Amino acid sequence: MSDRPNTVEICEKGPREGIQIEPGPIPTDRKIALIDALSGTGLKQIQIVSFVDPRRVPAWADADAVVAGFKPRAGVRYSPLWLNEKGLERALRYKDRLTFRDAILMSASEPFLVRNQNSDAAGNARRQHNLVALLKASGIPAESALVQAAFGCNFAGDIPTGALIATIEQAFDIANEHGIELKRVSLNDTMAWATPDTVKAAVGAIRERWPALRINLHFHDTRGLGIANAYAGLEMGVDSFDSSVAGLGGCPFAGHKGAAGNVCTEDLVFLCEELGIQTGIDLEKLIEAARLAEQVVGHPLPGSIMRGGPLKRLRQQPH
Amino acid sequence: MSDRPNTVEICEKGPREGIQIEPGPIPTDRKIALIDALSGTGLKQIQIVSFVDPRRVPAWADADAVVAGFKPRAGVRYSPLWLNEKGLERALRYKDRLTFRDAILMSASEPFLVRNQNSDAAGNARRQHNLVALLKASGIPAESALVQAAFGCNFAGDIPTGALIATIEQAFDIANEHGIELKRVSLNDTMAWATPDTVKAAVGAIRERWPALRINLHFHDTRGLGIANAYAGLEMGVDSFDSSVAGLGGCPFAGHKGAAGNVCTEDLVFLCEELGIQTGIDLEKLIEAARLAEQVVGHPLPGSIMRGGPLKRLRQQPH
Repeated sequence: MSDRPNTVEICEKGPREGIQIEPGPIPTDRKIALIDALSGTGLKQIQIVSFVDPRRVPAWADADAVVAGFKPRAGVRYSPLWLNEKGLERALRYKDRLTFRDAILMSASEPFLVRNQNSDAAGNARRQHNLVALLKASGIPAESALVQAAFGCNFAGDIPTGALIATIEQAFDIANEHGIELKRVSLNDTMAWATPDTVKAAVGAIRERWPALRINLHFHDTRGLGIANAYAGLEMGVDSFDSSVAGLGGCPFAGHKGAAGNVCTEDLVFLCEELGIQTGIDLEKLIEAARLAEQVVGHPLPGSIMRGGPLKRLRQQPH
Repeated sequence: MSDRPNTVEICEKGPREGIQIEPGPIPTDRKIALIDALSGTGLKQIQIVSFVDPRRVPAWADADAVVAGFKPRAGVRYSPLWLNEKGLERALRYKDRLTFRDAILMSASEPFLVRNQNSDAAGNARRQHNLVALLKASGIPAESALVQAAFGCNFAGDIPTGALIATIEQAFDIANEHGIELKRVSLNDTMAWATPDTVKAAVGAIRERWPALRINLHFHDTRGLGIANAYAGLEMGVDSFDSSVAGLGGCPFAGHKGAAGNVCTEDLVFLCEELGIQTGIDLEKLIEAARLAEQVVGHPLPGSIMRGGPLKRLRQQPH
């Protein structure tokens, strides 16, 4: 337990990941209401929007209006998702309101890249070079990378730790060519292949190779192991996690219809609190935001603690 | 990881815990169909029925018919729940078909005993003496105890490890007075207060005090930590767990309406498989039983892997 962090940073992904998967249209002002509720909980990082082709993702046709409309709160960083030059150029118009994180987008599985980004590994590397250059031209160093399918892929099977390391190596190479030092890598378990053992193995191998690199973990709960994987990460000293309020997000991949999405933010905050790890987040306010998320999407979401209730309340009762 | 067991025994609680909480009546033959499906998955322990007052729990008014009707499968032990002398006497009529496990029923929280069993600690101890004597008269040694609210209680707060140890001590005393040596204790996290840390602390303290005592863990997923707690137990070498197919069970306690129930059996089996721990259970057959459970209760149940799908299937695909 000595490796555990004292504090963790949680990056909220619900507004971006959750909204793109919803079948019905969600009005712009409801998206903004959710973002503004989340920024009032103590969360310091919120991914709020996706600058993608509105023909492919109609749910984000109003990306500009959402970015223009939310109320920036001091100390909170709001970030966009982009997949290509066009998306990044659109996002850069709002660079006074947005933070550009997870700048170098890699995949440990080439079959996943082909299916999800319509690109092979070489094509993706070329694109990432272009994106890093675009960011640099705007004065933004691309210091963080994101590895999709970091633990396994429905189309490629298990990802050996060596293949994950090689993928991160490529991200370092891309950054280096632009004179940038990579400071952070996010391991995204896009299709829910991670287990506590593979999490520990991956974190251990990255630590050994790049001791100064900050690791972020992003889990999906599609196979029920999300919180156990986060716990394994905490045991390894990881102090940065992605999650989604109320478990917003679902899983858009083949064969997972109806499956749970991202690890739920309030459940992760509850775990941290119970382990004595600070998050800076007000769990009661976050639960209110989770209830709002259910109202915004118009159906129940998979979060647990919003139904079970935190223990703090019960501890404060007279017994 | 060296403490991990090579094999674990999973005791299925879904038929008993799941059915009592369902609002609508479930026909006897559907209960039996679920039990018979479960016994075909490789599960070796199934709690199938509750001999309780049918005025209080109408869902089990047909307990006798269920016990008379299931098809016993060689190597599978079927067990009942009872709470008092009358219930045990009813169950003992079927002692050729049933196994009497979790024989000494304790609670680490007295307020919970008062609310759930309408008895204080002294009254419960007297009742347990009577029940152990009844079992002994039928030739059944009460070698296993169950501690409710082992980690915390909505009506009493956190249960310190010392209070848990004292409760188990009382169970030993009861068994000893009848010349029986307690061999097994089940720690039931009845109201979902356990965390990975308190699981490790409790298991460690029991091991130190009674090195030969076999520990069983029973978690509820009401606050989303069920699988993480099971993982913590496995890390401590615990090799016996209760769970419910499809996550059947819910939580009948105040303030938890709509909350998840017991840890889901197929999610637990998936975790074990991925960690290389044998369960003897066929995960695909178990998922079929989970789907049947949803049909039997007539609404979706919270299990994850029945939706996300196991990884074995995807590994076997050509890539």
